[in-house]
Amino acid sequence: MPTNSSSLYLPFGENKNAAWYGKDIVSVKQFSREDLEYVFGVAHEMRGMVERVGTLDLLKGKILANLFYEPSTRTSSSFAAAMERLGGSVISINEVKYSSVTKGETLADTVRTLECYTDAIVLRHPETGSAEIAAKAMHKPLINAGDGTGEHPTQALLDMFTIKAELKRFDDLTITMLGDLKYGRTVHSLARLLSLFNVKLNYVSPNILKMPKEVMDEVSEKGISQNEFSSLEDVLPETDVLYVTRVQKERFENADDYKKVKGAYIIDLDIMKTAKQKMIVMHPLPRVTEISMDFDDDPRAAYFRQMEYGLYVRMALLAMVLGKA
Amino acid sequence: MPTNSSSLYLPFGENKNAAWYGKDIVSVKQFSREDLEYVFGVAHEMRGMVERVGTLDLLKGKILANLFYEPSTRTSSSFAAAMERLGGSVISINEVKYSSVTKGETLADTVRTLECYTDAIVLRHPETGSAEIAAKAMHKPLINAGDGTGEHPTQALLDMFTIKAELKRFDDLTITMLGDLKYGRTVHSLARLLSLFNVKLNYVSPNILKMPKEVMDEVSEKGISQNEFSSLEDVLPETDVLYVTRVQKERFENADDYKKVKGAYIIDLDIMKTAKQKMIVMHPLPRVTEISMDFDDDPRAAYFRQMEYGLYVRMALLAMVLGKA
Amino acid sequence: MPTNSSSLYLPFGENKNAAWYGKDIVSVKQFSREDLEYVFGVAHEMRGMVERVGTLDLLKGKILANLFYEPSTRTSSSFAAAMERLGGSVISINEVKYSSVTKGETLADTVRTLECYTDAIVLRHPETGSAEIAAKAMHKPLINAGDGTGEHPTQALLDMFTIKAELKRFDDLTITMLGDLKYGRTVHSLARLLSLFNVKLNYVSPNILKMPKEVMDEVSEKGISQNEFSSLEDVLPETDVLYVTRVQKERFENADDYKKVKGAYIIDLDIMKTAKQKMIVMHPLPRVTEISMDFDDDPRAAYFRQMEYGLYVRMALLAMVLGKA
Repeated sequence: MPTNSSSLYLPFGENKNAAWYGKDIVSVKQFSREDLEYVFGVAHEMRGMVERVGTLDLLKGKILANLFYEPSTRTSSSFAAAMERLGGSVISINEVKYSSVTKGETLADTVRTLECYTDAIVLRHPETGSAEIAAKAMHKPLINAGDGTGEHPTQALLDMFTIKAELKRFDDLTITMLGDLKYGRTVHSLARLLSLFNVKLNYVSPNILKMPKEVMDEVSEKGISQNEFSSLEDVLPETDVLYVTRVQKERFENADDYKKVKGAYIIDLDIMKTAKQKMIVMHPLPRVTEISMDFDDDPRAAYFRQMEYGLYVRMALLAMVLGKA
Repeated sequence: MPTNSSSLYLPFGENKNAAWYGKDIVSVKQFSREDLEYVFGVAHEMRGMVERVGTLDLLKGKILANLFYEPSTRTSSSFAAAMERLGGSVISINEVKYSSVTKGETLADTVRTLECYTDAIVLRHPETGSAEIAAKAMHKPLINAGDGTGEHPTQALLDMFTIKAELKRFDDLTITMLGDLKYGRTVHSLARLLSLFNVKLNYVSPNILKMPKEVMDEVSEKGISQNEFSSLEDVLPETDVLYVTRVQKERFENADDYKKVKGAYIIDLDIMKTAKQKMIVMHPLPRVTEISMDFDDDPRAAYFRQMEYGLYVRMALLAMVLGKA
Repeated sequence: MPTNSSSLYLPFGENKNAAWYGKDIVSVKQFSREDLEYVFGVAHEMRGMVERVGTLDLLKGKILANLFYEPSTRTSSSFAAAMERLGGSVISINEVKYSSVTKGETLADTVRTLECYTDAIVLRHPETGSAEIAAKAMHKPLINAGDGTGEHPTQALLDMFTIKAELKRFDDLTITMLGDLKYGRTVHSLARLLSLFNVKLNYVSPNILKMPKEVMDEVSEKGISQNEFSSLEDVLPETDVLYVTRVQKERFENADDYKKVKGAYIIDLDIMKTAKQKMIVMHPLPRVTEISMDFDDDPRAAYFRQMEYGLYVRMALLAMVLGKA
């Protein structure tokens, strides 16, 4: 981690020459392979620091606004904890429906006002493209925490960091994505980032929930091998990373179609007997029935560790854009 | 207070051998007489520290999740202040209805996720037994802040600490509980804890709101004297602690029955003329009309001081389960 | 800023002799010309400290309760940031509708409870006079963050500080207030405070939204020149401060009346050609269409800077009432 280590001794100083200082985190498309390695290096340092000392004063005196136009306990708590573990403070604005926004204020005005008090904004918004609009209006860094069906870059980065931290590499891994691959922005962003490495991708989904052609085309251009399946059985034995997503009943036109397929997308101890001993099962959470709770104590169940890796990745990003990494 | 005093100089160190380190606080049944004395000793130290220096850095770097599935401004603010006065940070999750819980996530998954970011969880939940379920799912400490008609152990502990701090002892005190003794979990838990000491208990309530037989049986087994009354007059003169609770109109089948009794359960300056000069009046708050505001300035009115003692008790419990007391 | 500079070295000490120690901030009527100069002096110091070091530990160990009975993202965020930039902590109570208040608790009991945990309370309440009631019930400082159509003193103080910081003086300035002058408590309080200085006031509004006679009479008693206009054109060239407020459609009995006037109260680059080069445009925000976004990048557009000055004024007030300035 090429930190500006002197910043640790200048609590309010910022390294304004650092590559990420003042930058917005809007899309996974901003990240090259080298950028990813840098983020993961900083995240690894953050993990070590949390394990050794719990917190540090790197962002003491900095204030983060957590601006959530739609609820997401998991993501907002994760960013809040990341900021607080770095010694900073958080102002949570979760009830935007009650706020001046209802008086007709634009998103641009809201973020320009908030940045008068704070040092960075994390934005969750239901409309695709809103993160871009907010970032343009602001002078301080914005981090996109999900904008509609658009992007959720920090989720994709934490998914990548989980693989790196658990399996130590990306190259030569076989990653199998399971479930609803059509509507999940999570798997789209992950496939895009994985295509920067030499991986093999398997997509297992019901016919009506296949990975979109545009994502597959993009990944294909990078020379990545992709294969589609309707059943997990054939690919589970070779899988290094099984990424599970939920198949929602509402996606099906009639209940019978749903009943026919749903059993094929549930992970339990039984089906996992055919998987490698050294592999991991991931899930963006919350899960409902798609992973049996019996499997939770299996060492391959990485989904709660994945939440924890998210903390380190968000700590890394906050430190980077605030000139402290 | 048998603290590990060296921990004050090791800001991130924890005394993992301390008796309460990593423990959950789920029920008053966990507490022996010796345990209570220990909690009150730590709470007394906390009071001294708050009065002298306002705050301390004992839990610097620790993060508490305040997870409230039903609103309770009083309890959540008290825990938040307790954590912050110890130098720690708080993530408040008050709007659980909006969260992933509505997507069908189990309580177990929610707390397992939250503990990935935080060091302890305070849980308020409308269902009896939920604190036990959450505690079992977690690896980090859980503190029950009320689970339905079940337990609210920190309320009972702060009630006990109030008596100790105000009257310096429990033994040989006469404690009179007034009002709705049937539905109030507060008075049930308090009666159970008081039965560890040599006290005399009076219960004054309308006939339909008497102390449940199961609680009386439990207390009786400890050899504690209990007497029931329908009027306060007879017992007020001998009372050292008058614990007032609200008689809710909704408990009565017809309005006339309510009107008949309600006057008998209202405390004002007039009725208090017959009470001792050295005694205290307690109330879990909020109060409506059951204690006249005219009485607030009387030195025997201990209910706002009771709120403050709650802060010290919660500080003590947080420090204990996080290995700092 | 006549600070008790030694307090910086006694982190938990308070200067209990300081003039504002323990005081409530309820109304602009509390402030003399000398008081204003003092507040602005402290606010100026705060600005310097934020710019140099981001935060300071002046209020380390202090806890502020942000008690909002009606939503105001802007004001609550501003107070939260002010407290955190001074090293203190904040407990936000935004959802009062869910709280014990709904159980019938009085405002007096709520603030008396909250002050058991905290060091000061910021109150926003829909009813005029509620800040006064709360302040009387409490022993610790209360700051009024808006009580109905009553007062919002910190808004008026930040408006004044904006003028002072931008134009370096009040005397001999021409201040033009534009828009809805009838219902806006903002312009009423500002006019009252400005009347402590040697200013000239212009009021430009539709006929049905004129400055109330009682405010004009009060200002007039101080010997201040006031003139009313229905069009901005005549007065814009001489204006040093243009204070814009929104003309709400709902104020008009029929839509045609609104359509006739609304164009006359919109600020854009075109109309601003007739204004001085060295003057400022202010707005309490949120704005909707009354100031064109095209004007935002003009150096005379002071409304976002105004938000930032609000941070410094609130920092100053918090430090003052907590005995640290």
